[in-house]
Amino acid sequence: MPEHCPDAPLRSALLNDLYQLTMARAYDAEGMGQSATFELFFRTLPSCRNYAIAAGLADSLTYLEQFQFTESDLDYLKEQGPFPEPFLDRLKHLRFTGDVDAVPEGTVIFPHEPLLRVTAPILEAQLVETFLLNQVHFQTVAASKAARVMIAAAGRRLVDFGSRRAHGTDAAMKVARCSWLVGADGTSNLLAGKTYGIPIFGTMAHSYIQAHDSERAAFAAFARLFPGTTLLVDTYDTLEGVRQIISLRDELGSDFHPASIRLDSGDLAGLACKARTLLDEAGMNDVKIFASGGLDEYSVWDLVHSGAPIDGFGVGTKMAVSEDAPSLDMAYKLVEYGGQARMKLSTGKKLYPGTKQVFRYCGEGRFTHDVLARADEELDGEPLLKPVMQGGKRLPDAIPSLNESREYALRQIASLPDAIRSIEPAAAPYPVRYSAGLESEREEVEDWLDGET
Amino acid sequence: MPEHCPDAPLRSALLNDLYQLTMARAYDAEGMGQSATFELFFRTLPSCRNYAIAAGLADSLTYLEQFQFTESDLDYLKEQGPFPEPFLDRLKHLRFTGDVDAVPEGTVIFPHEPLLRVTAPILEAQLVETFLLNQVHFQTVAASKAARVMIAAAGRRLVDFGSRRAHGTDAAMKVARCSWLVGADGTSNLLAGKTYGIPIFGTMAHSYIQAHDSERAAFAAFARLFPGTTLLVDTYDTLEGVRQIISLRDELGSDFHPASIRLDSGDLAGLACKARTLLDEAGMNDVKIFASGGLDEYSVWDLVHSGAPIDGFGVGTKMAVSEDAPSLDMAYKLVEYGGQARMKLSTGKKLYPGTKQVFRYCGEGRFTHDVLARADEELDGEPLLKPVMQGGKRLPDAIPSLNESREYALRQIASLPDAIRSIEPAAAPYPVRYSAGLESEREEVEDWLDGET
Repeated sequence: MPEHCPDAPLRSALLNDLYQLTMARAYDAEGMGQSATFELFFRTLPSCRNYAIAAGLADSLTYLEQFQFTESDLDYLKEQGPFPEPFLDRLKHLRFTGDVDAVPEGTVIFPHEPLLRVTAPILEAQLVETFLLNQVHFQTVAASKAARVMIAAAGRRLVDFGSRRAHGTDAAMKVARCSWLVGADGTSNLLAGKTYGIPIFGTMAHSYIQAHDSERAAFAAFARLFPGTTLLVDTYDTLEGVRQIISLRDELGSDFHPASIRLDSGDLAGLACKARTLLDEAGMNDVKIFASGGLDEYSVWDLVHSGAPIDGFGVGTKMAVSEDAPSLDMAYKLVEYGGQARMKLSTGKKLYPGTKQVFRYCGEGRFTHDVLARADEELDGEPLLKPVMQGGKRLPDAIPSLNESREYALRQIASLPDAIRSIEPAAAPYPVRYSAGLESEREEVEDWLDGET
Repeated sequence: MPEHCPDAPLRSALLNDLYQLTMARAYDAEGMGQSATFELFFRTLPSCRNYAIAAGLADSLTYLEQFQFTESDLDYLKEQGPFPEPFLDRLKHLRFTGDVDAVPEGTVIFPHEPLLRVTAPILEAQLVETFLLNQVHFQTVAASKAARVMIAAAGRRLVDFGSRRAHGTDAAMKVARCSWLVGADGTSNLLAGKTYGIPIFGTMAHSYIQAHDSERAAFAAFARLFPGTTLLVDTYDTLEGVRQIISLRDELGSDFHPASIRLDSGDLAGLACKARTLLDEAGMNDVKIFASGGLDEYSVWDLVHSGAPIDGFGVGTKMAVSEDAPSLDMAYKLVEYGGQARMKLSTGKKLYPGTKQVFRYCGEGRFTHDVLARADEELDGEPLLKPVMQGGKRLPDAIPSLNESREYALRQIASLPDAIRSIEPAAAPYPVRYSAGLESEREEVEDWLDGET
C-alpha cells in the first residue's frame, strides 16, 4: 500500500469550476495573454464576528507550485467537447508562473481588505481561483471561529475535538491546524498531529466504560495502563463516577493516580463544582477537571465566568463547522487587466478597482484603524500585504513555521481593541478607511466604464 | 507527477482521534477481544429540518476495506509513547474483518434510527469510528440540505456551485456528489464530474466580462466560441446586459444564439421578469433565464412561487455549508459487547440498548410511520437496515451505482408525507415508535446496570 500523502489531498488542477476552463479557452482563443491581478477578500462580516483571522496561505502556495493538469485530467476535459486539442496541449504544459502578495497567516483582517493578491497571465490567474477560495475561505472561517473559543477559554486548556463532525477529511485536518494557529493547545486528530506537529490529546470514550462490566473496573484497568490519564466520569452518573475514582484511590493508593477527570454531559458548571468538592475533600486537589460536550465560545465563556472549577475544554462540532457562521462572503475579483484597473458595478456589490494595499495603524500596543489604499501609495501605517511568491516560486521565508505563525496570530489577537476582540458584537465596527488615492481611482474607472460599456 | 487519486483522499487510518488508539491499546492489554456492535445515528433534528437523507456509505465501505496503518503511521504512534511494540505490531497487521448493516444511501431517516451498524472485534469497531462519523455525518448533512433546495426548485434546473466555499476539498467533492444524489442536475466541479460521472455546468464569470474593454465585445467573443452558451448579464447593469444581447442578435443574426442568460445579483425576481419581457419582445423566447447569487431553499422557493420566469438555479455557499444546520447531533454508540446489550445513561442522552432495526410503514404510496425495534424482532414493516459487508468484504450489490441511488433517493423523498417534505418546519414530527421488545430490553439493561455499576 502506498504511503498516504496527507498534506496534498485533492490538489488536483481539476478541483475547479468548469467556467474557469471555458473562460481559459476563450482567453486563449482571443489571444488575451496580458497580466491580470485578482484580489481575494470578503465583503462583509457576519453579525456574530467582529474580525476574521487570515489562514490558508501555506496550502495556497503549495498548490500554486504544484499546479498541473494530469493526462487523465486532460482526457476528461477532451471528452467534454468544447476544448480543442491545441488548447488541451497548452493546458498540459501550463504551470503557474505568477506573483502572489498576501497577508501572513494569523493576520487579523476586515471586510474589503485583500488577504491575497495574484498577478499572472489572466489564464493562469483565472484557473487557480476555485482552489484558492476553497482553502483560504474555509481556513479563515475555521481560524476566526477558533480564535473566539480560545478567547473565551481565557487561558484554560483548549483542545480541538472536531474531526468526526468537520465537513469531510480535509476540513478535519484544517480545523486542527487553524485552531492550533490561533492558540488552541492541541487536537484529538492523530493525522493532524503527525502532519503539522501539533500536540495530540485523548484518553477514553463512553464505549470503553460500557464495554466493561462496571465503570470501576474500566477506570482501574485504564489508569493502570496509562498513569496520569483522564477518566471520563459521566457514562452512568457523573458524581457516582467521581466517587468511584476516590474509592479506587483509597483502595489502590499511589498505584492509582489519574491526572484529571472529564465531564461530557449535564450541567457542566454544577457538576464541576460538586466534583471539585468531592475530589478536594478526598485530598485529590491535584486532579484537574476537563469539560466537553456541545461547547462553543458562548458556553465556554459562561462556564469560565460562572467560576466553575474547570481546567480545560474539549470543543468539537460547533467549532469545527463554525456553527454560527459557517461561511464568509469571500470572493476573488479581477481588479486589473492589461495595466487598466477594473471594477464590477452590479447592484449591491460595488467594489474598489485596482491593486490595493492595507495599511494598519497602532497606538499603545493596539490596532486603531486600517486604511485601504492603492498599492502604489506610500502611507505611514504598516503594510499588511507582502510578496510571498514571484514567478511561480515561493520567496524564502514566505511561509513561517506553523509555530511562528501561531505566535504571530496570538500577538495579532492581543492587539485588537477590546470591543473588537470580544465574543459579543461590537457596537461599532473596527475602522477601515479608504485612501484618497483609492477613491479617485474608483471615480476614474467609473468614468471609463460609463464611456465604454 | 503521479496521478491524483481523488476518490481516496486522506483515507488514512491515522485520520483518527487519539482516544480510539488508547482505548484500542487497553482492549488489547486487557484481552478484550469479543465482538462489539456500534450503531451510528443522530439524536435530534435541527428545528429547520423535518428529516435527513442518509449518505456516505459508499466511502465508508471503501475505507473499511482499505483500513490499514502504514509504517509511517506506526512510527508516529511509537514516538507518542504509550504504545508498546507488540501493540504496534498488532496494528501493523490489523485489517477490518467485521460486518456492516446499513440503510442505503438516499434513505430518508429520522432521529435515533441507525444509519449504519458495525459488528466487529471491539478494537476494530472502535478504530473506525472517527472516519465513519466524519463521512456519514457530513454527507448526510449535505444530502439533507440539497434535498430541500431540490424540492424548492420544483423541477427547475439546479446546479451545485458550492466548491469554492465548501469546507475544504473533500467537502467540495461530497457536496457535488450528495446534491446529485438527491436530484440536482449537476455541478460546476470538474473533479466531481470526472470522479462521480456527474454532469458539469459552467460558462463565464464577471472577470471574463471585466477583462474585455466592453461587455458587448465579451459576449460576442464568448458566444462565437461556445454557441448555445449562457451569458452572465449583471457585471455592470443587468438589463443593459440583456439589451446588448438583443442588439448583438440584431447585428449578427443566427451567428449569435446564446441558450440562456444568468442573473447573479440584485432583485432576481424583478430582473428576471424585465429580462424575460425584453427577450420575448425581441423574439428571443427560447433564451432561458438562469439565476444564482447567495441562494438557498428559502430564496429559491420564494422565486419559484413569485412566478418569476427563472428556468434554473445555481446554488453555492449556503447549500455547500448547510448554512442553517451545518451539523447533526450524530454519534456512534456501543450497543452490545460480548453478547450483552449496553447503554449509556448520562443526563439528557438516554439511549436504547442492543442491536436495532428500523421498520417503515407505508400507506397510499407515502410513508406513514417507523418502528424502531430489536434487530431480532420480525415486524411487518419494511426493514431499512440491510447487510452490506461481511467479514470485511462488501457484499455483491451492497452499493448500487450513484445513478441508481439517485433514483432511489428521489422515490424516498417523493414518499414523504407533504408536511414532512415541506421546507417549513412540520407541526408534528414524523412518527417514530419504539417496539415493545425494545422497551423491555431497555428495562432489562437498566436493571442490570443498576446492579453492576
